[in-house]
Amino acid sequence: MVQVKRLRDALCLIVAYLTFSVGHALADEERLILLSAKESIRHESLTLNDHIPALISESWELQLQTLHGGMQEGVQLLRVDNGELILTIVFDRGMSILKVQDARTGEDVFGWDSPVKEVVNPKYIDLEGRGGLGWLYGFNEWLVRCGLEFAGHPGRDVMRSNTGDDKELDLTLHGRIGNIPASEVHLVFDAEDPSELKIDAVVEERMFYGPQLRLDSTLTIKAGERLFRLDETVKNLSAGDQEYQIIYHTNFGRPLLEQGSKVVVAAKQITPMNDHAAQSISTYDTYSKPTQGFTEQVYLVEPWSDENGLTASVLHNRKLTRGAQMIWSTGTLPHLTIWKNTAAELDGYVTGIEPGSGYPFNRRIERHFGRVPVLGAGESKAFSISFELLDGADSVRSALQNVERIRDGRATIKNRSAPNLPDFE
Amino acid sequence: MVQVKRLRDALCLIVAYLTFSVGHALADEERLILLSAKESIRHESLTLNDHIPALISESWELQLQTLHGGMQEGVQLLRVDNGELILTIVFDRGMSILKVQDARTGEDVFGWDSPVKEVVNPKYIDLEGRGGLGWLYGFNEWLVRCGLEFAGHPGRDVMRSNTGDDKELDLTLHGRIGNIPASEVHLVFDAEDPSELKIDAVVEERMFYGPQLRLDSTLTIKAGERLFRLDETVKNLSAGDQEYQIIYHTNFGRPLLEQGSKVVVAAKQITPMNDHAAQSISTYDTYSKPTQGFTEQVYLVEPWSDENGLTASVLHNRKLTRGAQMIWSTGTLPHLTIWKNTAAELDGYVTGIEPGSGYPFNRRIERHFGRVPVLGAGESKAFSISFELLDGADSVRSALQNVERIRDGRATIKNRSAPNLPDFE
Amino acid sequence: MVQVKRLRDALCLIVAYLTFSVGHALADEERLILLSAKESIRHESLTLNDHIPALISESWELQLQTLHGGMQEGVQLLRVDNGELILTIVFDRGMSILKVQDARTGEDVFGWDSPVKEVVNPKYIDLEGRGGLGWLYGFNEWLVRCGLEFAGHPGRDVMRSNTGDDKELDLTLHGRIGNIPASEVHLVFDAEDPSELKIDAVVEERMFYGPQLRLDSTLTIKAGERLFRLDETVKNLSAGDQEYQIIYHTNFGRPLLEQGSKVVVAAKQITPMNDHAAQSISTYDTYSKPTQGFTEQVYLVEPWSDENGLTASVLHNRKLTRGAQMIWSTGTLPHLTIWKNTAAELDGYVTGIEPGSGYPFNRRIERHFGRVPVLGAGESKAFSISFELLDGADSVRSALQNVERIRDGRATIKNRSAPNLPDFE
Repeated sequence: MVQVKRLRDALCLIVAYLTFSVGHALADEERLILLSAKESIRHESLTLNDHIPALISESWELQLQTLHGGMQEGVQLLRVDNGELILTIVFDRGMSILKVQDARTGEDVFGWDSPVKEVVNPKYIDLEGRGGLGWLYGFNEWLVRCGLEFAGHPGRDVMRSNTGDDKELDLTLHGRIGNIPASEVHLVFDAEDPSELKIDAVVEERMFYGPQLRLDSTLTIKAGERLFRLDETVKNLSAGDQEYQIIYHTNFGRPLLEQGSKVVVAAKQITPMNDHAAQSISTYDTYSKPTQGFTEQVYLVEPWSDENGLTASVLHNRKLTRGAQMIWSTGTLPHLTIWKNTAAELDGYVTGIEPGSGYPFNRRIERHFGRVPVLGAGESKAFSISFELLDGADSVRSALQNVERIRDGRATIKNRSAPNLPDFE
Repeated sequence: MVQVKRLRDALCLIVAYLTFSVGHALADEERLILLSAKESIRHESLTLNDHIPALISESWELQLQTLHGGMQEGVQLLRVDNGELILTIVFDRGMSILKVQDARTGEDVFGWDSPVKEVVNPKYIDLEGRGGLGWLYGFNEWLVRCGLEFAGHPGRDVMRSNTGDDKELDLTLHGRIGNIPASEVHLVFDAEDPSELKIDAVVEERMFYGPQLRLDSTLTIKAGERLFRLDETVKNLSAGDQEYQIIYHTNFGRPLLEQGSKVVVAAKQITPMNDHAAQSISTYDTYSKPTQGFTEQVYLVEPWSDENGLTASVLHNRKLTRGAQMIWSTGTLPHLTIWKNTAAELDGYVTGIEPGSGYPFNRRIERHFGRVPVLGAGESKAFSISFELLDGADSVRSALQNVERIRDGRATIKNRSAPNLPDFE
Repeated sequence: MVQVKRLRDALCLIVAYLTFSVGHALADEERLILLSAKESIRHESLTLNDHIPALISESWELQLQTLHGGMQEGVQLLRVDNGELILTIVFDRGMSILKVQDARTGEDVFGWDSPVKEVVNPKYIDLEGRGGLGWLYGFNEWLVRCGLEFAGHPGRDVMRSNTGDDKELDLTLHGRIGNIPASEVHLVFDAEDPSELKIDAVVEERMFYGPQLRLDSTLTIKAGERLFRLDETVKNLSAGDQEYQIIYHTNFGRPLLEQGSKVVVAAKQITPMNDHAAQSISTYDTYSKPTQGFTEQVYLVEPWSDENGLTASVLHNRKLTRGAQMIWSTGTLPHLTIWKNTAAELDGYVTGIEPGSGYPFNRRIERHFGRVPVLGAGESKAFSISFELLDGADSVRSALQNVERIRDGRATIKNRSAPNLPDFE
């Protein structure tokens, strides 16, 4: 039996209306609205255990918090503790995941130490700023999505305008989706057996005379496990065709990144993104120590997949005792970008492992290479990625074997030079 | 006898200070401050009937609400129900009117179904974005004002800078006023006879080394009527001359817009805005069904006015059983833009009927044609428009007769080609 | 004995957590957190006298307030009244000081009457707007800092990008620091002897692939005095070298500015900023009455300093009965800009007295002239300025004598023409 309660926000006696979203609710599921533009619901803070006794039995701890001060004023975080991992999800930044901690030690295991310390509210960010690099004012998440209309480098591109003419406009770095506040965030669970939670969310990238793209995101996590999964769709809500791009920009620093760390993928083909990266193609998979003045190296990977269309990446530490495994479907995420930025710790010692619909070149270039998919009217594409914390040598070994199983003895083409890019000037 | 009360916001026990704005208050009027920058007053929500018993006798229902979630976080709406119509006014978007509903059925009668679903808070909008088209990220109102420094298309214009030199700058689509939060919103009524309400508001477009333009807006509505009126002034608060532009951008979709709907005006002259619109000049006044891939058609109308300087437009449905009449003074709003955008429903099936100080060309072009008025120091101009829901064939017929009365048999010049525009490059 | 209390916000029963910031607290100091991003603390309002009885004994009045309505929605002000002066400090605008009032009369003594009337929340401001002049949408403070990455005029400059290449980008007028909300604001005092208060604040200008500059600001003020002091540092938190610029842009209107007012400095050299200013170099130090259409005149001053490295400026009224004295260290603030803008009262009758690390040319030009200092990794520079209200002829005379003492008979070179600027096009 599902019970709907009226919560009391202890701080301000604000009444929190918890209602069922009838359209989405499954048979035995409870759906708790944490945020809703549709129903105009927002909570200053919530300690969910106080209101869902069922959670306690499985040692869940869920806390919704609003940040204050500086550039983080008004940002809302959801902290999901399943007893093994603690995920911190940022509502106001397109459901980015700020970091993942080890619940037993509190240590950050997925994430990095960005020079950006506060969780910046998009209301302060001008994506067009700094020649289209304004996105970098807020970049500090472990996982941030790039997209949805465009996902790569800033610079000129062409679109059809309202007047029917082609119009040149400047794309901004990595698109808008990471700086759009979520419209809906619902907690979904079975009150009889709350061993699994889902965070359902909606982030919308809409405008008049422009894209109408909706991201439906479901994060699934079970109590007591060291893994979780994102199942997402991007839907074109307009009446005409619409291009889209999506890159899952995951970023790892300490402790997984260190001198001697490696990233392991079953690569069909690896290409340096530019001449600078080409010089280090032979060591594309190993990481150096923090290096003051390091210039980023980016490698473009086309992964092999197994008979189920899945591929995997493993990032592991030098001693092969800890790591992160990502498994995803290459049907809609056929490309992988490896971003090496082993700069000084203070400037962001970090690597990005980034499955995507394409690579982070400007969309104009991506389109030239046929890597900008199109959604017909009402059409959607689904994306699935699972993330696992590999703890101990056995886990790492097993994950590496999985990569080898996917590779299945097939060769890797390593291109020594960057692709020839079209000249659009 | 006027009574001033201290309201209690039921949600948060916030004390709402109701004070008289002595300067404006008329003899028997009460003035309730709904929002005030001057006195730093803002309410999370208010059910005004709880505090003004007089309203109930006339079956008014007034509700102030703050929206939460997504791009609408923090936006404040005032819902004014006079028993016949329900107006939804957006404080944070320059007192735009989101929609007008039939109070008896709840149906939206004035308004449209924009791809932009949330009422977007200007704090998330970058008007300079997307090549100056950032305004389109929030465009979903029935009535939004364009202006006040500039009101038309984006692109280069020249202004005098602080250093005394001419400086080129990029104007942004439709100006700033629709994305500036109101500074003051007051509810004005006679407590002894609350059959009429006024919403007084102030929206200011100010900067240093730039315009100081103040919009004073009064919306007047009577209980039980199907019409209401805007009486507004734009005032130049600076010590020198200042150009201004204003366009009342009203937008209609279903139910008034459908295949066979017509817009009827007493036109002295009609000119297509560009070559594309010129091709369809012969059917400028009739609407087609939603058409995927439709490219906007814009017609520039110079209306005739009657001996009182008034003109009127009627938009009516195919069967002439419902419609919208607008009556306005051509003294300060001598130009009318008809924007036909009968695109697919999902992309915004809509037409704009837009009285203005000029047309929506870039200000540079408008200036060239002498359509950018100048306000001297301290000078102001007044604008008046009334809006009526025409319900039933009699109402529509009567409104059409009014247009014919204004036309008074005078001819219409229909230009077959778009104006020759100056080349500023 | 230090007592930490739990305050009750009378309006909303919000519990305000007052905690010690152990790291910074000195021996006998209490440290009250007024705002903290680190601890996610923000108060809607606080009447500090209610909570700190010790303050009352010295006739302090401290009030924290949140503004509502219009463009000021959500901005927080701290009003510090020491019995003689009332300072109004703006948390959300980089700890700018809006104005200083005479506590006995309430009159604004430091400050000006800007066309911008509301204290604009940076969330509404697009610094890149209007060709890089967006800063002017919020400019109305008595003291606003320009900087920290760049502090001068908008326009092209070059920076090293993430890809290792040089990239051209557009700087925006006066930089970002004046539109960044403070991360920390602490009130520091000795509970046993609260004759002196300190306002400690942190404002951070951070991004990925960009500057990591922290402003630590301490404002010191004593009960019953007509002066106060800023002691600040700018620290480079990145691992590499970082340029910085800072200009303390103080702005005076009535009552200190009037026809016949003078600004007096011990100048080693004075140079007009452009040809227009050059025409009036002979009267650079005297002010005219408000003049409609006045074009700004800017003078670049290299001040002499005394044996302690200090210099001073005095702005006094026509009768030499009132004035403002600033004393600062020329070690890190070797340049002074005098901005004369004796425009019409309605448009901003104001003069800027602006000690800085350089002049307000575009950074590219400042770099060319060797006026853009560089901070090594972890390095910081300190800045100190004291401000005194001169009340009465004796005070003014004494301050003028101080300038003469600094000048010590040394000559002033008055350049008749503006500097030859490099042509970067």
